[in-house]
Amino acid sequence: MKLDTSLYFITDSTGFSEEEFLRRIEAALRGGVTLLQLREKDKTTREYLELARKVHVLTKRYGVPLIIDDRLDIAMAIGAEGVHLGQSDLPIDLARKILGPDKIIGATAKTVPQALEAYQQGADYLGVGAIYPTTTKVKTVLTSTDTLRDICAAVPIPVNAIGGLNRDNIDVLSGIPIAGICVVSAIMKAEDPQQATAELKARAQELGLI
Amino acid sequence: MKLDTSLYFITDSTGFSEEEFLRRIEAALRGGVTLLQLREKDKTTREYLELARKVHVLTKRYGVPLIIDDRLDIAMAIGAEGVHLGQSDLPIDLARKILGPDKIIGATAKTVPQALEAYQQGADYLGVGAIYPTTTKVKTVLTSTDTLRDICAAVPIPVNAIGGLNRDNIDVLSGIPIAGICVVSAIMKAEDPQQATAELKARAQELGLI
Repeated sequence: MKLDTSLYFITDSTGFSEEEFLRRIEAALRGGVTLLQLREKDKTTREYLELARKVHVLTKRYGVPLIIDDRLDIAMAIGAEGVHLGQSDLPIDLARKILGPDKIIGATAKTVPQALEAYQQGADYLGVGAIYPTTTKVKTVLTSTDTLRDICAAVPIPVNAIGGLNRDNIDVLSGIPIAGICVVSAIMKAEDPQQATAELKARAQELGLI
Repeated sequence: MKLDTSLYFITDSTGFSEEEFLRRIEAALRGGVTLLQLREKDKTTREYLELARKVHVLTKRYGVPLIIDDRLDIAMAIGAEGVHLGQSDLPIDLARKILGPDKIIGATAKTVPQALEAYQQGADYLGVGAIYPTTTKVKTVLTSTDTLRDICAAVPIPVNAIGGLNRDNIDVLSGIPIAGICVVSAIMKAEDPQQATAELKARAQELGLI
């Protein structure tokens, strides 16, 4: 599956029944997300595995790569297309050695040096932020749009903006050569996730962001 | 490194500085543990990785295999000798597929059917218990010594007893063909972990358990 980070949806199952969670994921896929990350922090390995398998059935149906947050073991166990690694996860170069050249490895970067390091260690794309404060990661540090622009100039891999982004505020990214946007709440908590995805995509296209 | 489960020490870093934790591990290795498991539940992947690397330096120095609890990603990242998988972790057969034939895979079993399943899926040894109530896993269910005996008879792989075991109570295991004993607190919380290990080993040998 080709890596297209233009509309990258990161899930958060908090507060949803599994049925509703999967329903929302499928709605987002129908709405046009191009990449999907499963991120779970409080599940046992077995629970994470079982949920990941169900999500993978959906993403494969829509031809969208599934990225597993943090856990290479889960990604390998279900044959996911890739992993996303933050600064508290395995180092990129070690993950690349374990996963081989074909799996997608994404990294989080907040600064140009972090971005360069992740790229040099073998990351395939970067998530950069938080651009706005976010309810998903309350302790996260903000990254300015100037730094985002500098990172886009510094590395040849796709750079995505992340953090509190939604249809009404992504105009702040106009003119910055990002590859795409990452969202959690804008889709996850939308009344109609399919419509929210489609509208977000339309707005990003209208602004020439993607 | 050869698998010898006769005196299997499972660590618990709770309440110790890293320095003291590593000091106690080395003392246990000097005292004669034959297998060592690192079990961490509240660390980030990066923290788990870094601690595992330090523990691995020690275990290699004493020629003792290092088993990582639950996390195949950590085990692969540091080249540990194996993993231990409970009922909330990855299924044994899946782990075997990922790790290949040479890594040690241990499993937890509380009943004969669980033991048979783990063996058939490729487990190299079993931990069976809890024989006594334990402070490490407060919600665990007890396993009778009769069941332990039945499991020893049912599978051809090494079976270890676990759960609240110490020098003063392992006589309850007399006559059961276990391969070894697993302990956490008896060594981890001992005033002198090296001496505690040596005395536990001497007592187990005296009883003909190992």
